Amino acid sequence: MNWDQFFVPYEQTVTELKVKLRGLREQYEQDGENSPIEFVTGRVKSQASIEEKIIRRHLDESRLALDLQDIAGVRVMTKYVEDVYRVVELLRERSDFQILEERDYVMNAKPSGYRSYHIVIEYPVQMYHGEKKVLAEIQVRTIAMNVWATIEHDLRYKHGNELPADMAEQLTSLADENFEWDQRVSEIRAAE
Amino acid sequence: MNWDQFFVPYEQTVTELKVKLRGLREQYEQDGENSPIEFVTGRVKSQASIEEKIIRRHLDESRLALDLQDIAGVRVMTKYVEDVYRVVELLRERSDFQILEERDYVMNAKPSGYRSYHIVIEYPVQMYHGEKKVLAEIQVRTIAMNVWATIEHDLRYKHGNELPADMAEQLTSLADENFEWDQRVSEIRAAE
Amino acid sequence: MNWDQFFVPYEQTVTELKVKLRGLREQYEQDGENSPIEFVTGRVKSQASIEEKIIRRHLDESRLALDLQDIAGVRVMTKYVEDVYRVVELLRERSDFQILEERDYVMNAKPSGYRSYHIVIEYPVQMYHGEKKVLAEIQVRTIAMNVWATIEHDLRYKHGNELPADMAEQLTSLADENFEWDQRVSEIRAAE
Amino acid sequence: MNWDQFFVPYEQTVTELKVKLRGLREQYEQDGENSPIEFVTGRVKSQASIEEKIIRRHLDESRLALDLQDIAGVRVMTKYVEDVYRVVELLRERSDFQILEERDYVMNAKPSGYRSYHIVIEYPVQMYHGEKKVLAEIQVRTIAMNVWATIEHDLRYKHGNELPADMAEQLTSLADENFEWDQRVSEIRAAE
Repeated sequence: MNWDQFFVPYEQTVTELKVKLRGLREQYEQDGENSPIEFVTGRVKSQASIEEKIIRRHLDESRLALDLQDIAGVRVMTKYVEDVYRVVELLRERSDFQILEERDYVMNAKPSGYRSYHIVIEYPVQMYHGEKKVLAEIQVRTIAMNVWATIEHDLRYKHGNELPADMAEQLTSLADENFEWDQRVSEIRAAE
Repeated sequence: MNWDQFFVPYEQTVTELKVKLRGLREQYEQDGENSPIEFVTGRVKSQASIEEKIIRRHLDESRLALDLQDIAGVRVMTKYVEDVYRVVELLRERSDFQILEERDYVMNAKPSGYRSYHIVIEYPVQMYHGEKKVLAEIQVRTIAMNVWATIEHDLRYKHGNELPADMAEQLTSLADENFEWDQRVSEIRAAE
Repeated sequence: MNWDQFFVPYEQTVTELKVKLRGLREQYEQDGENSPIEFVTGRVKSQASIEEKIIRRHLDESRLALDLQDIAGVRVMTKYVEDVYRVVELLRERSDFQILEERDYVMNAKPSGYRSYHIVIEYPVQMYHGEKKVLAEIQVRTIAMNVWATIEHDLRYKHGNELPADMAEQLTSLADENFEWDQRVSEIRAAE
Repeated sequence: MNWDQFFVPYEQTVTELKVKLRGLREQYEQDGENSPIEFVTGRVKSQASIEEKIIRRHLDESRLALDLQDIAGVRVMTKYVEDVYRVVELLRERSDFQILEERDYVMNAKPSGYRSYHIVIEYPVQMYHGEKKVLAEIQVRTIAMNVWATIEHDLRYKHGNELPADMAEQLTSLADENFEWDQRVSEIRAAE
């Protein structure tokens, strides 16, 4: 398998989505409106991480493009919880990709405490031999949720992807407090 | 007129087109194929230059988006004359914009000696309040044609946009030699 | 005063510092080391904001480059509080700029609750007519501190730069909780 | 040998030099001056190309950083031949690197017809464990010389790095004509 070739449409998808979503923020600013988008990041899943999933989930290499929905991943961070839903609305109204699936882990956190709004899209990339539809995952979360996810990811990674039970528990409770914090921010802001 | 707001969709169009066309080059490289695209540049017409055109051509500010087709401009440079037409073919096959007009100044140079293939497209930009169709001009030319155009533009600019007759004549003859040079390159290449 | 010209060395300083500090992160990654730098942002103070300061502080336009230390500003975000000090150490060891001043608002928060480590540097930019020394401010903070600062800035901005007293108080208490949260993260991490 | 680690300071050097030299162009523009710098590119030599040189020139892996002066390479393109020397002057006056060597292949073309001004510098990169001096090569040439070099490189590459004698001869004569063309441009410009 030629991985460099495999990644080309995914790299392109991530690059285009970043440029498009960052452009929205710019538009809000020029209009003097407050942007629900604070910043945007993106990454293509690493070869090592894909190979690990192939083994763990018994995936077929020829079906990777269908079975892995997050090879291309883009993250949109918002200041406020309510802005997560403004971004979701913005994404639903776009005509440059199709939404295949939405999962609201903001209101329904994962057992770990993880919160984010996940949207799987089908994005058409123009290759030199024609259009190719690529699956991509857009995660929308507040900057506070992103802090927790960054730290949880880092600590999990250092423990070989498996957190000790007590550490996992403490992190879940940090996630809960984090969300309460986010909600108090929204209350302060609404009281303006 | 709020120019900063006016330019937002044009800036976005140029950014997206640059990212898309540069991505093609990357794809050719990963496939081990020779890319017809050598490099890509882009620019949005300056406010000063638009205002000058409004006056000179008696344009109506409210119709700028229709009357000026090159507010958003992207340039694709190729190594060889024959690659200009490979790029044109690539652009025709894309499904992310509509081609409105093509003008072949490569085979039919302008009186000044200028050569380039011009394509006017209608490009859909996703704004936060919906899709907006933007006109943009894509110019395709060899890197040698681009050298001449760069120098002619620079000398013309220094003479207040109006070249002295003898200088214009000499530049036209430099353009002709430039094109013969390009054709000899193609012959050498074809003889391989 | 020609503001576009005025900003050139500041824009250049911010661009160079961003590229340099992001490069460090890349180096840690290639070495398989955990990077104390999570991400880096930068901005040049806006003309409007400088003009507002000139009036409010009775500054002399000819002394701006000396009296305003944060026209060029770069921010380094870390995952952990202890990484703030690793970054400060890194900055102290560099030989491409001089540190003029350090202020530790991480351990000694401002009355508002704001936390960050501030470093004022003198950075030599190479202009075409020679070297020019530019003052710049580097702020180092955790990603959690950055969340609070982002939200406080946004709410303050919406209230014309002056927060209502009760809102200011609530934000200070959110800052305190935020810092406790950061410290618990450090404890969990240290217990590994 | 860990190539990814090996390349880190070279990648960093190229990134910093590109940002610095592009900044100069920006400065000329804001000053309303004509910039001798038209555009800047950069690349790090590929692993394959270094390994090929190790074999061909019997190099010692431990001495690569000393024996290969162009692992980090930056190219500055100018519109006019006389601007090549303005850029060389600019580079000589900078205090952020040391010039080790200069070779003028503009006035003294290589037998192939190749023209460019080569400067080898020693550039200090700040790594996280201290400063590291890196050799880098800056090539300065007109955009016309760059066209010829691009085409010659492409044709040579397709012939396994060894051009057939008649093709090499034809390319040399194209290089000579190219230089005459460049000189006529300078004459037209001087006659202004």
